[in-house]
Amino acid sequence: MKRIQIAENLEFSQIIHGLWRLSEWKMTSEQLVTFIEECIDLGITTFDHADIYGGYTCEEIFGKALALKPELREKIQIVTKCGIKLKSSKFPELKMNHYDTSKEHILMSVNNSLENLQTDYIDLLLVHRPNPFMNPKEIAEAFNQLHSEGKVRYFGVSNFLPSQFNALQAYLNMPLVTNQIEVSPMQLEHFEKGTIDLLLEKDIAPMIWSPLAGGQIFTSQSESAVRVRAMLEEISSEIGANSIDEVMYAWLLAHPAKMMPIVGSGKIERVKTAVESTKLRMSAEQWLRIYVAGMGHNLP
Amino acid sequence: MKRIQIAENLEFSQIIHGLWRLSEWKMTSEQLVTFIEECIDLGITTFDHADIYGGYTCEEIFGKALALKPELREKIQIVTKCGIKLKSSKFPELKMNHYDTSKEHILMSVNNSLENLQTDYIDLLLVHRPNPFMNPKEIAEAFNQLHSEGKVRYFGVSNFLPSQFNALQAYLNMPLVTNQIEVSPMQLEHFEKGTIDLLLEKDIAPMIWSPLAGGQIFTSQSESAVRVRAMLEEISSEIGANSIDEVMYAWLLAHPAKMMPIVGSGKIERVKTAVESTKLRMSAEQWLRIYVAGMGHNLP
Amino acid sequence: MKRIQIAENLEFSQIIHGLWRLSEWKMTSEQLVTFIEECIDLGITTFDHADIYGGYTCEEIFGKALALKPELREKIQIVTKCGIKLKSSKFPELKMNHYDTSKEHILMSVNNSLENLQTDYIDLLLVHRPNPFMNPKEIAEAFNQLHSEGKVRYFGVSNFLPSQFNALQAYLNMPLVTNQIEVSPMQLEHFEKGTIDLLLEKDIAPMIWSPLAGGQIFTSQSESAVRVRAMLEEISSEIGANSIDEVMYAWLLAHPAKMMPIVGSGKIERVKTAVESTKLRMSAEQWLRIYVAGMGHNLP
Repeated sequence: MKRIQIAENLEFSQIIHGLWRLSEWKMTSEQLVTFIEECIDLGITTFDHADIYGGYTCEEIFGKALALKPELREKIQIVTKCGIKLKSSKFPELKMNHYDTSKEHILMSVNNSLENLQTDYIDLLLVHRPNPFMNPKEIAEAFNQLHSEGKVRYFGVSNFLPSQFNALQAYLNMPLVTNQIEVSPMQLEHFEKGTIDLLLEKDIAPMIWSPLAGGQIFTSQSESAVRVRAMLEEISSEIGANSIDEVMYAWLLAHPAKMMPIVGSGKIERVKTAVESTKLRMSAEQWLRIYVAGMGHNLP
Repeated sequence: MKRIQIAENLEFSQIIHGLWRLSEWKMTSEQLVTFIEECIDLGITTFDHADIYGGYTCEEIFGKALALKPELREKIQIVTKCGIKLKSSKFPELKMNHYDTSKEHILMSVNNSLENLQTDYIDLLLVHRPNPFMNPKEIAEAFNQLHSEGKVRYFGVSNFLPSQFNALQAYLNMPLVTNQIEVSPMQLEHFEKGTIDLLLEKDIAPMIWSPLAGGQIFTSQSESAVRVRAMLEEISSEIGANSIDEVMYAWLLAHPAKMMPIVGSGKIERVKTAVESTKLRMSAEQWLRIYVAGMGHNLP
Repeated sequence: MKRIQIAENLEFSQIIHGLWRLSEWKMTSEQLVTFIEECIDLGITTFDHADIYGGYTCEEIFGKALALKPELREKIQIVTKCGIKLKSSKFPELKMNHYDTSKEHILMSVNNSLENLQTDYIDLLLVHRPNPFMNPKEIAEAFNQLHSEGKVRYFGVSNFLPSQFNALQAYLNMPLVTNQIEVSPMQLEHFEKGTIDLLLEKDIAPMIWSPLAGGQIFTSQSESAVRVRAMLEEISSEIGANSIDEVMYAWLLAHPAKMMPIVGSGKIERVKTAVESTKLRMSAEQWLRIYVAGMGHNLP
């Protein structure tokens, strides 16, 4: 599988595995070790976490597997996130889910992640959501401390619009190395709001969440889902894909922004579908026909 | 009261007094001197004007008070604005209120302001509104001349979106030192359009107009006003405020962009409310609960 | 006529002639030579093409006229465009009109344009539309090659929003010299989206297409057309114009962004109307009254 140079000393697999549903899969640690090894055999070496996934449980499950087979750590890249606080037994005082991008919270969150993941370092830490109460100076202080302590190698963001990205970057003495955003033929927002343009401008490869539009593409009878599904099926037969999932991954992989789709399945067969898609080739016209189906109107 | 460093040699009080209704208060010059002194005693040293306030009358009323007690001038910072022309006896030929950001108009406007305010210099001059017919090169020429003549110490803008701010800044050889914008829990536009992100990026403190949403928060029965009011009351009791006005000021003061709310009341008791609010502390969660009430939907 | 310095060694006439309907005019090559000479006599020396105009026929018609009188070439500036592929006999395999900004297509397109136009060089090549599948690195490679081969002197874009403009510019080692956009009192989009602000910021003169709003202003009974037409007629008598077309051109010419309207008529009398408009003067207030009529609501 193609590898994407994210930073001077960091490469990601172009397909990334996402573990936000890990707690639902009811794997034993042994089973998870096997699953991780199967991913690695497929060329997927990058794993995407967040402190909050599974109600603060997924990192810990993953960490137990790593502890069983510590030599895995050097073979993979771990991404995790901070900045959201869930109303939960962990934060019983909260009245709603909210954002916390204070230095104190970021440091605490990373310490928890390290402990849960049973590792000494995180390869890439993301701010999970843009926070209207964000203090970029304070985030920069937290990042600098985490970096100098060796706890986090690189930093990025998720779901940030261009103005938010630029505000945070202005206070950092190292470049943000990714923006994890939602993109699919059903979700074109970041083409329209300049997010992808900024990533192209700065030559930053985005991680892509919900590359299959949360699965709605397979079942929804909404007008747009029906329209996009029909086009994906048409392109599928043109490019020799086995399924419309493969076409959706191929559509992201074909884009010049070096998009890295996150596969969120615990079934290795579904993961293989994503990996298979890396062999597909799509023309500019085919790419745009899918884009047009997503927009719902012709190109001007 | 906390003071905000606006530029190398300019500090503002974090609470600013705004005089757009001065002509309605029917104060004598002696009463206005007393009022200004009471503000100064409360720590408020920055006074916000515009040429057009009160139909071109407020600056003159203020100037007469200053003339009674000239030693006040050195204790305060005067902000005024230019760039709007009102259909009025002053400009009888106009068919509508409009914008004029020509060099000629800016120079004339400042000369009038200096005369009306009975002062030799303005601390900060703002372009009142972004003008689609704006020639940034011409504004820069006017600013340079006013600066070299010693008539205006610093320059800024009001109600400018990021692209407008950047267009003007590109032609100036000194940084714009503020953007005076409307922000309140009822007016979140500048969070959404990147204005506040740009201010954070450049570390520029904004002046905030209509911090109490023009008073509608106290009386309006609109769905959003009712929702925000209920949340302000909830937070009020949590943080020990005396009123929801205090909470609204505290909400602005807590934000990391170093927001400087403008209090527009001629009643010293109302001004004290704003000053009292500087003692309140608000958590990130409380801040965001008010933000969410203003948006009308949960954080993603 | 005023000339606009577009780049170090390139000047355009402020009124540009556009040839997108040339194929409909049924001119002989001799008639077209006469028409071009009449334009030049009026001061219009810049001619705007695109590969696709007239279904890939207009460049060729123009080229035949140039071949009749080769000495015209040095007296004019030729603009053409690339990046759109029309479903047509030229590309019979296409399922829809689409965009192609690949290096291969750009090089092929320019070679075709040179052949059709019967010239050795194009003064200015534009990317016709922003392409969501655009690879700025690849466009830059194509531009560099075309420049070093002497086939294209300068490069620009058309219909690009600021984030798209910045993404492409980041990969070029020469500045984009224009953005050809649609602007008229009926089309204010680029004032609202920051496009014109960015052009002012970078001191780049835009070419303006559809300066007469595609002619709808003369006939449409839509609320906005009726409103704008009434205002244009009012201003027409105030500034001594002969027609509302002249007022529309004058409105663009008065703007500080150095707008260069494209006149698309094959009737020399209509072209003269545009040229006549360069003599008109419009005040800031008159300009804004037309803008307000276009917006449909007062200035804030």
